[in-house]
Amino acid sequence: MPTRKAHARWEGSLKAGQGAIDFGNGMFRGPYSFGSRFEDRAGTNPEELLGAAHAGCFAVALSLVLGEAGFTPESAGAIAHVRVKPQERGFKIIQSRIVCEARVPGVDPNVFLQRAEAARQVVLCRRPSQAPRSRSKPKLVD
Amino acid sequence: MPTRKAHARWEGSLKAGQGAIDFGNGMFRGPYSFGSRFEDRAGTNPEELLGAAHAGCFAVALSLVLGEAGFTPESAGAIAHVRVKPQERGFKIIQSRIVCEARVPGVDPNVFLQRAEAARQVVLCRRPSQAPRSRSKPKLVD
Repeated sequence: MPTRKAHARWEGSLKAGQGAIDFGNGMFRGPYSFGSRFEDRAGTNPEELLGAAHAGCFAVALSLVLGEAGFTPESAGAIAHVRVKPQERGFKIIQSRIVCEARVPGVDPNVFLQRAEAARQVVLCRRPSQAPRSRSKPKLVD
Repeated sequence: MPTRKAHARWEGSLKAGQGAIDFGNGMFRGPYSFGSRFEDRAGTNPEELLGAAHAGCFAVALSLVLGEAGFTPESAGAIAHVRVKPQERGFKIIQSRIVCEARVPGVDPNVFLQRAEAARQVVLCRRPSQAPRSRSKPKLVD
């Protein structure tokens, strides 16, 4: 598996400066700034990129573990919600919560929940025999 | 600071299926597949998104800590190299290495190295008084 690369560039000071982040050999290039990271200005920020990695990893992991149980998802959607908390110095990511909405023909809700937990463990690179690292468990919301 | 969101959707099985990842309210939407994640096909993958988050965070952190020492970078570029290793189940990210190239008027190379280490600690959400968590230290390459 190839080494993956991504690039960022910042010009100037923290507050008055600005930057750009790019990856995928030009597939994406987006501006970022103090305002797009710490406020609500247009542009990208590392937190949503991390959420995109998390959601992308979860959705494909869910397909993997559903397949292992004999199911094929028509669709597996995942939205990552990344929460950040101010610290003494800077900000810390305190949570990336996945909300998943999937269409899986023939699956029982309890089996689906168990598969969602299995997918979470795959994302965390945990073996099935290892105890869960996180306190949160998948639950059905509707 | 708002909660950041990103979305992924996968349709079908692990190997024959395909997905898309999007974030930034439509700023980016890119396809991904088994081939773009585990092989070298076109499309994005969670690993390069994680690298983009890492590089973006490092570049702005470097501007922060240079500013604290009285310097303003003309430019601070960071490339993340994300290495992944096959595991018993799936793959594990084993390294995200930053190569940084910066133009900082008036800065001494040793001061720059010390600021690069400070930026690394900010990215890791470590206080200056805490011991480094990683074994790797910044070093000059040319």
